[in-house]
Parts: sequence; structure tokens; C-alpha cells
Amino acid sequence: MRTINELPQTSTIDQELEGGWLTLWFNTPDNRNALSAELSAELMAVLEAVRPRRDIRGVTLRGRNGIFCSGGDLKGFRTELQGQGDRGAVIEASRQAGALFNTVNTLPQTVIVIVEGAAMAGGFGLVCCADLVIVTADARFALTETTLGIPPAQIARFVVQRLGLSTARRLMLTAARFKGAEAQTIGLADFLAPEASDIAPLEAAIREQVLRCAPQANAVTKALVLATQNTPPDAMTQLAAEGFADCMLGDEAREGIAAFIEKRRPVWAGE
Amino acid sequence: MRTINELPQTSTIDQELEGGWLTLWFNTPDNRNALSAELSAELMAVLEAVRPRRDIRGVTLRGRNGIFCSGGDLKGFRTELQGQGDRGAVIEASRQAGALFNTVNTLPQTVIVIVEGAAMAGGFGLVCCADLVIVTADARFALTETTLGIPPAQIARFVVQRLGLSTARRLMLTAARFKGAEAQTIGLADFLAPEASDIAPLEAAIREQVLRCAPQANAVTKALVLATQNTPPDAMTQLAAEGFADCMLGDEAREGIAAFIEKRRPVWAGE
Amino acid sequence: MRTINELPQTSTIDQELEGGWLTLWFNTPDNRNALSAELSAELMAVLEAVRPRRDIRGVTLRGRNGIFCSGGDLKGFRTELQGQGDRGAVIEASRQAGALFNTVNTLPQTVIVIVEGAAMAGGFGLVCCADLVIVTADARFALTETTLGIPPAQIARFVVQRLGLSTARRLMLTAARFKGAEAQTIGLADFLAPEASDIAPLEAAIREQVLRCAPQANAVTKALVLATQNTPPDAMTQLAAEGFADCMLGDEAREGIAAFIEKRRPVWAGE
Repeated sequence: MRTINELPQTSTIDQELEGGWLTLWFNTPDNRNALSAELSAELMAVLEAVRPRRDIRGVTLRGRNGIFCSGGDLKGFRTELQGQGDRGAVIEASRQAGALFNTVNTLPQTVIVIVEGAAMAGGFGLVCCADLVIVTADARFALTETTLGIPPAQIARFVVQRLGLSTARRLMLTAARFKGAEAQTIGLADFLAPEASDIAPLEAAIREQVLRCAPQANAVTKALVLATQNTPPDAMTQLAAEGFADCMLGDEAREGIAAFIEKRRPVWAGE
Repeated sequence: MRTINELPQTSTIDQELEGGWLTLWFNTPDNRNALSAELSAELMAVLEAVRPRRDIRGVTLRGRNGIFCSGGDLKGFRTELQGQGDRGAVIEASRQAGALFNTVNTLPQTVIVIVEGAAMAGGFGLVCCADLVIVTADARFALTETTLGIPPAQIARFVVQRLGLSTARRLMLTAARFKGAEAQTIGLADFLAPEASDIAPLEAAIREQVLRCAPQANAVTKALVLATQNTPPDAMTQLAAEGFADCMLGDEAREGIAAFIEKRRPVWAGE
Repeated sequence: MRTINELPQTSTIDQELEGGWLTLWFNTPDNRNALSAELSAELMAVLEAVRPRRDIRGVTLRGRNGIFCSGGDLKGFRTELQGQGDRGAVIEASRQAGALFNTVNTLPQTVIVIVEGAAMAGGFGLVCCADLVIVTADARFALTETTLGIPPAQIARFVVQRLGLSTARRLMLTAARFKGAEAQTIGLADFLAPEASDIAPLEAAIREQVLRCAPQANAVTKALVLATQNTPPDAMTQLAAEGFADCMLGDEAREGIAAFIEKRRPVWAGE
């Protein structure tokens, strides 16, 4: 295992690397872990450094201080974006936010988001970019943007991707507030932790499942499943065939199929 | 508040404008509120007049006489479409129906559909174009088209949009009949009213939520969330950034963010 | 009714044609009904022969020996694909698998899949190509590919089509195992048979519904609803209008609308 020193240092995010899994804790209590410019830039830098590393099998995003993320940095919006009134600069800031959501969504590693306390607006958007989501029963959610006069813009496609168009438009146009159980009902959460103490075993079970899957096969799979969203059927058939062939003739599949036939665990699954 | 006289007069639809919300009551008991050529044309005319008006915050579609909409006008199909046998004319009639569904789906205002009694075939399609749907427990639903030898054609994309492909193909190929509770289970209905008397408080709660959201921000949001369906990711990022910038530098966001920081209600939310 | 002799003979699949409905029983107990090259080729041949026949109203896919399908033929993968190491040949084999899934998905007839025992990997993918799915409570499901080092490649778009992107990525990246009740919860199954003896009445009810729908109208409808996945809105409006016109001016719709107005059953619905 490499040392955590190879990842960029961060002041708004605490990093923990254990057993091939990186946990990133948002930790800016002053703004309730808002997606400030600084936290966003640090998160982006870490994820870009993680992207090529097959020794890191998964990333968990969660928040210190009993809250996941309160959303955009409203004071920053007011002083930076509205204060200067430069449309080009606002567009660029929005595009950068979009790039961050896209990076979380397309990370080759499996991404878990754990929500305690609240995930609002842009924080809600981040949840929608995860592969697996655990929420506590008392966690609170809302797409509050339009109550402030702004649209949930960059997160729109990720909210639709996660919840479907109908639920997305309902939540966006009403700013409806809801808690963990409804998050599970509408498909925002995969797993509901009745209490905070139920989070750890739920996450451990997911990690264990992911670690039994081959690292490169999972990376190829994630790219293929996301490609289905924007690829015509014929092109998708070819893309899938090439991904299948690259894996089938690679080391992982030779080991994986041999191990299955020999009734043993493949090398990546440990023990 | 402007007077209702500015909207086109209608003979098949009763109009009520109250508190910035327009209710359109289908009212043709002879054909159980079927989507006749006349009702369709009147509905289109009213919605086109509503489209630019930010003082109208929402539109509710519902039916008089205990039924929402019985679907297409079969006698009209027989005498007009089949009687003349002009393929070009049938195509044009179908395209006009498609334009009506699209207008409901893309209306900048929030659209509520309330279903009492039944929503069949094209009436079912209309439900799928709403932002929020309330149904009574005894309301009946079915995509009955193919039992008549015709396809649910123009509504196909709206049914898929609302219910997903799997449920859409199941309901279309079986003409399965179901009631309100199942409508909620499959995602056709957002809210179930056990009795007709439960409709009013459900609708009032939705209106109250929508009125707390900024009018222009909601219009931009609805356009963006619908755009996700047909816009490649990179183009979506740019579209979202422009919509975000236009709102962020507009009057609503300056008021909305100021109000939030000052812990008061923004002007559009009243009181 | 034509004789079953007109369909290609098969050695890995048992065929039953009754009342306009074709049941195809996978029957290769040695590999637990795996999608071997032979079974795949025979299934493709039968379905291509079925495609133009409007006298066959539906197709049911199921498995003998208490299992639906165990997935890919791992021993074949090892000896044929990995043994030869020819990337072009692996790509071609994958493309053929994709063509089979696509043929099931787009068959003009209504397709039911019945799962007893298990539907794993590619067998799971086949389930996702059906119009209606019945599973027993004790049936087992998993996308096990990446535990073997290969991606669920050709089935990715059909799994996403059936379950949505979020559930698809979760199941693909964890290889999570689940049973019939969860299959129904996530939308993989339309109907849950508590016991195997509950399958027959469930299937009979579906068949009865489908037989009340007009054959050509159902074929046009299935093509239209699938087209919504890959057709821009304006083109979809035109495609829908043409399909509507062709049906409206055809024999089925003249009979169907006349029968409805005359309060009798249309000719295709029997009795």
C-alpha cells in the first residue's frame, strides 16, 4: 500500500486511507461543510490524483460535525459572484462546479456517499453522483435553490440520473424537504441507517463486496454503464465489445475464470 | 393581479384564477371530458397565453363531473380520421396532439394534474406531462389504445419520461387497468388522496411550496431539467452555466440570497 | 394456427406453441442453461423466425430443471476466447451476444421471462430485455461478472433500461446477490410468484390481457416505445404520427373502434 502522502494535502478535507479505501471527510464547521471554492478545489485535486490508482478501490465522501454538506457557499456567491457582476466569471464558476460533479460521477473507483445531518442543494447534487448512498433516518434533504432565486443548474443532470425526471422536477420546483426514509423510497439512498451507529456495518459490507470484484473490470464496467447514457445503440455495442475483449484477454479475467473453475478466490479478493 | 379576461375564452374548459394559480376544469360531460379537437384547441390556446406570464405561478388541470379525461374522441376518430381516410390529415392531427402534450410538459409554470374518476389513454398521457400529480384512491387508469387497434403514439415519450421504459411497455402492451394506489406505486402519482375531500389540502400544500420558489428561477429550472433529456453532457454543462449566471446576476437571486442572509422572506414569498 | 414445424428445430431449447403463444424452455442441464454458443445461436434463429409472424402473439422464455439461466459459458470463455487470444474474435463474439439481447428486446411480439432458480450475469441481462417478468420468491439474481474479472458489457444498456442507472451501477460494481422480493422492489420483476405453482395463473392473466390487444397495434407500439430511447423529440413526434396514421387507417383500428362503439369484442379478441 502506498502512503497517503502521495495524495494532495488538504485543509478543508480530512483524508483516511485504509485497506485500499479512501475516506474523505468534509470538515469546515464554519459553513456546515459548504461547497466553498476552497473545498471544491481540494476535492477535485484529490480525486484527480486518485483516478489512475487501481490500488485505491473505493472512495467514501462524508462530513465531520454531523452534517454531510449544506450546499453552495451563499456568502461567497454574494461577495464574489454578485459583487463583481461579471457574467463570464459566473459562467466559469458554474462550469467548474459542473466539472467537480462530473469527476465524482465518473471516478473509476466505487464512490460511497454517507449522509448524516443534511445534504442540501449542491450537497444533494453530490449525493446523486455516488455509486452507493447510505443515509441516516434523521438526515434532511432539499433542493432549496429556487427559494433563493437560483436554479439547481449543474446538478440537474445528476439529479435526473439518480432519481428520474419526474421526481427531479417535483423536488426542484417545490424545494420539498424530506428525511432519510423518503430518500430511500425515491431512490436517493440505497441504504437507510436507523442510527448513526448503523453506518459502519453497512459501509463495511459494501466495501467487502467491492473488494471481491476485480479492480480494472470494475473501472471498465463503470465507464460502460455511464456510457449507456449518451451512446447510440450501435456504438454502444461496439464499445461494450471492445471493453469486454480487453478484459477477457487481460490478466484479471484469466485469473478470475481460472479461480472460479478451480473453486478458489481470485488474487484480488485476498485470503 | 391581472384579470382573467386576458386569457382566451373557452367553452369546453372552465377557468379559475386565484392567488396566481390558474385552474382549468375540463367540462364536456357528453364525452366524459375526452380530448376532442375543440377541447384540445382551447387548452392549447390558454396555455400559450399563460406561457409568458410570470404572474401566473402554476396551472392545475382537472375535470368536472367526477372524471379527469376519458382519452381520445373515438367518434371523432371514426367520422373525421377514418371517414376521410386521408393519411396526411391523420398525421397532422396526431402531430397536433403531440404539440399539446409537449406544451403541457414544457410550460414554464408548475403544472399539477388532479385525477378523479379516470385518466384513460390520451388522458393518461396528459397526466405524464405534469410536474406533480394527485390522484384519488378510486381513480382508474389504463393505456387502452391497442385494444382499439391504435398505438399510444404521441404519448409514448411522455409515458416513458414519467414511468420509465419498463413500466411503459408493460402497460402499453397489456392495456392493464389499475387504480390510485398502484398509480402511486409505479410513480404515476406523487400524492394519493384517500377521498376526494383530501385533494384540496394536498393541492394547497403544493401551491404553498411553489409560491416560496422564485418565479423566473423555477422557469429556468424547469427548462434545464427537461433539457437534460436531450442534451449531451458538455452542452448541458454550458447550458446550465448560462442559466445559472442569468439567474445569479438577476433581481431574484440578489433578493433571495440577501433575504436568506438577513433571515427574512424574499419578496415573492409574501408576508 | 400454423404448425410448430415452421420454426427452426432446436436441441438446447424445447418449444411449445399453444393458443398463439410460444414458450421456449432452455434445457441444457449440464451447464445450468448457460448462454452457450449453441443455445444462443438456436435462440436467435427461433426468434428471427418468429419476428414476422403476427399469428404468434407472444413468447415466453423460461428454463427447465428449476433454473432460468446461469449466465455465460465460462468453460467456453476459457477454451475458445482466452485459449485463442484473438481480440477480433472476442469482439465478434461479444457483438453476437449483444445482437441476441437486442433481438429479444425488440421482438415485435410481447416477451415474458419467467425466472425460477436463478438468473445470473448474462441470464440477468436476458431478463432485462423482456416486456414482462415473473420471478419466484426464491429465485436468485446477481451481476457476477466483475468477480470474474470481466465487465457486464453487452447487457449494460439493457440493465440500465430496466433498472435505471443508479441500481445498475450499484449491482454491477458490488455483484450483490438478491432474491425475488428484492427483484420486484427494484423493478427487475413485475410479478412475484410466492411458489412455483403461482407462476401459471400469473402468466395466464398476462396472456389474456395481451390477446385482447390488436397484434399489429402492439407491434407498432413496441417499436415506438423503444424508439423513445434514441430519438430526438421532433423526430419522435413525426415517427409517432406516422405509426398512428398507419394503424388508424388500417383494418385493426376500423374494427377496434367499431367494436367499441357497438359494445362488442373485436375479432382478434375471440369469443
